[in-house]
Amino acid sequence: MQFFNRENPIGVFDSGIGGLTVVKRLNQCMPNENIIYFGDTARVPYGNKSNSTVIEYADEDARFLLKKNVKIIVVACNTASSVAINYLQENFDIPIIGMIEPGAKKALEISKSKRIGVIGTYATINNHAYSKKLLEIDKEVKVFEKACPLFVPLAEEGLIKHPATKLIAEEYLNELKQAEIDTLILGCTHYPILAETIGEIMGERVQLVDSGQAASQDVEKYLEGRGLRNISNSIGQNKFYVSDIQTKFEEIVKLFLGKELDYFAKIELEELTKK
Amino acid sequence: MQFFNRENPIGVFDSGIGGLTVVKRLNQCMPNENIIYFGDTARVPYGNKSNSTVIEYADEDARFLLKKNVKIIVVACNTASSVAINYLQENFDIPIIGMIEPGAKKALEISKSKRIGVIGTYATINNHAYSKKLLEIDKEVKVFEKACPLFVPLAEEGLIKHPATKLIAEEYLNELKQAEIDTLILGCTHYPILAETIGEIMGERVQLVDSGQAASQDVEKYLEGRGLRNISNSIGQNKFYVSDIQTKFEEIVKLFLGKELDYFAKIELEELTKK
Repeated sequence: MQFFNRENPIGVFDSGIGGLTVVKRLNQCMPNENIIYFGDTARVPYGNKSNSTVIEYADEDARFLLKKNVKIIVVACNTASSVAINYLQENFDIPIIGMIEPGAKKALEISKSKRIGVIGTYATINNHAYSKKLLEIDKEVKVFEKACPLFVPLAEEGLIKHPATKLIAEEYLNELKQAEIDTLILGCTHYPILAETIGEIMGERVQLVDSGQAASQDVEKYLEGRGLRNISNSIGQNKFYVSDIQTKFEEIVKLFLGKELDYFAKIELEELTKK
Repeated sequence: MQFFNRENPIGVFDSGIGGLTVVKRLNQCMPNENIIYFGDTARVPYGNKSNSTVIEYADEDARFLLKKNVKIIVVACNTASSVAINYLQENFDIPIIGMIEPGAKKALEISKSKRIGVIGTYATINNHAYSKKLLEIDKEVKVFEKACPLFVPLAEEGLIKHPATKLIAEEYLNELKQAEIDTLILGCTHYPILAETIGEIMGERVQLVDSGQAASQDVEKYLEGRGLRNISNSIGQNKFYVSDIQTKFEEIVKLFLGKELDYFAKIELEELTKK
C-alpha cells in the first residue's frame, strides 16, 4: 500500500455529472476536504453499456484521478460501482469506495420489515449488485429490483415534478409498491434529484436511501480511522475535470451540486484512452 | 478522387442505432445494395456533446468505414451531419451524404406556405443546421426550430404511444403548432419511430419529412448518375459493426430496422481512437 498524505484531495469519478449529488454530500460531510472530480461526459451514459466497456472506462477514470495524487477514490456512479468495483479494488493500490456496499448497509440499518427495493439503471439492476450485497450481509432480506432507465434523462432535463415524470415513475414503481417494501435504495446518482416525486409515489412508510450520502459517511469514517482526514480549518476546493462540455452543462451542474463550480477544465479523450 | 467499384458496399454510420431507420429506407430504395453500418454505441449519444467532440468521433467513424472499402458514406445521424458534414466533405476523398441537405430540399419541395418546422437534438437545433440550409436554398422561408431531447430515450425505451410520451410531445410541439407550419422535418434518426404520435399532435395539415428517406433517394440518384449502382439481382447484405453491445440491443434493432440483423460484430474502441 502506498503512503497517502492527509492534505491530498479525495478523488471522485462518474460517467457524467450525476456524481455531483455525491460531491454535494461529501462537501456537507467534510467541508474542509479538497475534491478532484472526473466526469466522463464524452462517453456518458455508462448505464446502457456492456460490462467490459464499463470496466475499461472505470479503469481509465481511476488512472486519471491517480495522477492527481488523490488519497482515496470514490466511485460516484452506481453502474461503475456495480460492474467494476471488484476489478478496481484488485487492480489499484489505493482505497476505493463505491456506492453499493454503503447503500446496502444503510438500507439494512433502516429496514424493519427486511423488504428492500432497489432502483437503478439497466446495468446496475441486471448485475444484481445491490441484491447480492444485501443478501451477503443478511440472508433473510427480500430484495425487489427495478430498472428505471428514463429517470436519468428526465432528471437531466430538469423535469423534476413534471406530470410525464410522475406517470413514468408511477409505472416503474408500481411493482415495488405492490411488494410492500419499507426501504428503497436510490441506486443511481441521478435519482436523488427525483427523490420528492419518488417519495410521494412510494408513500410515507417507505424510507429512501441515498447511496451517495451513505458512501460519504463511509469515506469520512475510513479517513478518520487512518488519520487521513484533512485538518485544515478552511473550506476545501472542488476541482472538476470533464471529457466534454455537454449542452446545458452549467445549468445541470447547479441543479445537481446545488451551487456553481469553483474550477473546471476539459481534458482530451486521448489522454484517457492511451495506454 | 479515388476510383470506386459499383459492387462495393454503401457505408453508413451513426452515433448508435438510430441510423437503422435510415438503413431501412436504403434497403427499401435499393434492395440489392450491400450495406456496412457502424454504430458508435460505446459513445452514444452525440446529441448532447460538444461540436469538437462530435467532429472527432465522426472522423473516426468515417475512417472505420473507409477501411471496409465503401463506395459512399451516409452520415445517418443528424447531429453528426449538422456539426461535421463540412469537415468530412473537405477531409475525405469519397462522396459523403448527410441528413441535412436532403431533408431541407424535400421540405421545400413539399411546403406550400414556406413555414417549416424542424425538431432535433440540442446539437442539431443549436447549430441551426437545417435553418441555415433552408435559407440558403430559399430566402423567403420561415423556419421554426425546437430541440426535443427526450424523444431519443423515449423511442429507445419503446414508449411509442405512451401517455407520458404524448404529454412531453405536446409540450415540445406546442410552439410549432402555434407557428402554423405546414411541414415538419424529423431532424433526428430516432424520430421516425415516434412519427405517428408527432403526426397526431401536429394534425393532418402538417406533413412530416423523414430526412433518412430523403437522403436514401439522394444516395440512389448520386450512385445512378455515376454508374455506381450495384447491378446484382440478389438481395444485398446488411453488415453491422458497433463499438458496444448495449442493453436490449436486439429488441431496439428490431424496432428501428423492422427486422433482425444479417450480421453483426463488436469492435474495440481503441481501434477507433488510435491515430
